[in-house]
Amino acid sequence: FLWPKFLPLEHGFDQWFGAPNCHFGPYNSSKRPNVPVYNNSEMVGRYYEEFQINRKTGESNLTQLYLQEALGFIHQQSLSSKPFFLYWAPDSTHSPVYASQRFLGRSSRGRYGDAVMEIDDSVGQILSWLSTLGIEQNTFVFFTSDNGAAVMSGPNESGSNGPFLCGKETTFEGGMREPAVAWWPGHIPGVSFQLSSLMDLFSTSLSLAGVSPPNRTLDGLDLTPVLLNSHPNNTSLTDRPIFYYRGNQLMAVRLGPYKAHYWTWSNSLEEFESGINFCPGQEVPGVTTHVQKEHTMQPLIFHLGRDPGEKYPISVLSMEYQTVLRRIAPVVKQHLDSLVPAAPQLNMCDLAAMNWAPAGCEKLGKCLKGPESLPWKCEWPH
Amino acid sequence: FLWPKFLPLEHGFDQWFGAPNCHFGPYNSSKRPNVPVYNNSEMVGRYYEEFQINRKTGESNLTQLYLQEALGFIHQQSLSSKPFFLYWAPDSTHSPVYASQRFLGRSSRGRYGDAVMEIDDSVGQILSWLSTLGIEQNTFVFFTSDNGAAVMSGPNESGSNGPFLCGKETTFEGGMREPAVAWWPGHIPGVSFQLSSLMDLFSTSLSLAGVSPPNRTLDGLDLTPVLLNSHPNNTSLTDRPIFYYRGNQLMAVRLGPYKAHYWTWSNSLEEFESGINFCPGQEVPGVTTHVQKEHTMQPLIFHLGRDPGEKYPISVLSMEYQTVLRRIAPVVKQHLDSLVPAAPQLNMCDLAAMNWAPAGCEKLGKCLKGPESLPWKCEWPH
Repeated sequence: FLWPKFLPLEHGFDQWFGAPNCHFGPYNSSKRPNVPVYNNSEMVGRYYEEFQINRKTGESNLTQLYLQEALGFIHQQSLSSKPFFLYWAPDSTHSPVYASQRFLGRSSRGRYGDAVMEIDDSVGQILSWLSTLGIEQNTFVFFTSDNGAAVMSGPNESGSNGPFLCGKETTFEGGMREPAVAWWPGHIPGVSFQLSSLMDLFSTSLSLAGVSPPNRTLDGLDLTPVLLNSHPNNTSLTDRPIFYYRGNQLMAVRLGPYKAHYWTWSNSLEEFESGINFCPGQEVPGVTTHVQKEHTMQPLIFHLGRDPGEKYPISVLSMEYQTVLRRIAPVVKQHLDSLVPAAPQLNMCDLAAMNWAPAGCEKLGKCLKGPESLPWKCEWPH
Repeated sequence: FLWPKFLPLEHGFDQWFGAPNCHFGPYNSSKRPNVPVYNNSEMVGRYYEEFQINRKTGESNLTQLYLQEALGFIHQQSLSSKPFFLYWAPDSTHSPVYASQRFLGRSSRGRYGDAVMEIDDSVGQILSWLSTLGIEQNTFVFFTSDNGAAVMSGPNESGSNGPFLCGKETTFEGGMREPAVAWWPGHIPGVSFQLSSLMDLFSTSLSLAGVSPPNRTLDGLDLTPVLLNSHPNNTSLTDRPIFYYRGNQLMAVRLGPYKAHYWTWSNSLEEFESGINFCPGQEVPGVTTHVQKEHTMQPLIFHLGRDPGEKYPISVLSMEYQTVLRRIAPVVKQHLDSLVPAAPQLNMCDLAAMNWAPAGCEKLGKCLKGPESLPWKCEWPH
């Protein structure tokens, strides 16, 4: 649900097939239009209309459609021997979860498992295609996710965060920690335990493309020294911190195997009591709090190696706590001191922005009349 | 802590190196002796005495000692070209967790991780040794565990049960579900989702050895049709039930992807409030109950595929619940109707049984005088 200036072609992409948002809906077009699907600068239809998702059966061929687009794009680029960047972001594991007909019911993990199976199959097809085209030695592939499983959608539409606490929307490990696989035959020597962040992909991609980073402060680091190093644990990145935010609030920081929570919050008691649970089946007293609880004077510190589930805060009386806090406190201070507040670009909501008449709608006869622009500051209950 | 008649050499083993129990202790010999370590029919020392475990540092070379015994035994058997059965049961991941010096501090998962790393290394050495001796095509290896991680020992001395509920001592998946790897180069074609039980290893071993099972009712099944079948999901074992007991009480039954709880219990509120927690960080209302709660009239049913964490009981009003219960109920009835109560052999406790003067103690000057035999019915708080 974005103004045209936020769309991919305005931000460095030469081609685009997809939607400006996840497949939310279906919506009644009188109150809110369905999310459009674009082919480059023009819409080619809308979710639930031209691009079917059967909410009852969970059937949709969208992942196959996105896969064909990806394979076609790669083919086209390889024919012209041009270097390329592909961002392939299937959305079938987002509620409402879907899979195409031949994957529905095939996994033993319900509809969510079916969707994962189809993505797994699709990633396999993309990798095979790179090999078939003979460009696999020259193509870097990075597989990861934008957040932990949305466990509040369980059990039918959520994955599992394994041993980790809570899920998406929170700054506990279940919300923030992701699997990540880097693939580049002949170039990546082994497994690395490097702590990293999705923001590193920008710096890493620049480095791989041989482009200098722009002259500004970047949150991400170039991971290539780690990824391409045959002794990945010998590099100096290992102890970089990662900061966990909710909105403007620094909630926690990860440094080495330790994580310090300066604030804890799952979601509000009000929201929780209305049935929205970010930590179903889990409760760690004093940690999965339903109030926004400050611990700034004495952060909760966990050793994520011994305690990946954030269940056992290290005793504040222990030598370990004191040693770790002395390392983390100056890192946090430096981070906060060096932050330059920026003007938020995405905190205003406006029903007029909601894809009523995307470019190309005339050809399809799918232009809708939206309301007047009446922006308000968005509210986010969690 | 067992009478001699229960020791391995009385039960079909030709050789034995090990202890009749885990490395509990250390004990003060006046009240209770330390657990002996046997070499065949004679003790060769005791834990914490001749067989050191440093409770402070966690250092012990016991896993290495057990590994050398295993490698030596395999070598000896292969020299004489005799078929053999080896039961290798390291105990280093049981509290108090230990590892030998070169593994201590090497994992990123604390002392428990170090112990797992040493077992992993040892299993690797056993498999390599089989290959070195050229008998790997002729040796079936099965790796598994007797129960889920003892999460009540967390965080320093417990593993993780990943997405599963609770841990050892309970009949939730965290207590009962185990990883299992069958290894036999050239004979085991792939992964199987067959539901199985440790009791199957008896029947499976008989089958592999070409021995007919004794003429009595066995709980285990011969898994060889599944293990050696190139289409493992085509066999008829797939839907066999597994029954979960605590003491004499049938708590739950697993059938296909479903699990029905007829009783639920984590541990008593009294024990829980004394600090013993079988489900740390986890709480599923109405499931992880601190009273022994009966659900016989309306068992709690979970689909372990969609819901491996047993968090979402299937609604009793749903068609799925009714269908599943109609399948499970007769299976449970048949099981209970066909049970023949047996005389318990291990429910009496007796301080006199506790290894005061094991065979061979004279040579070592390590015979202790125990109390008179005064048996009482054992109490088990959970």
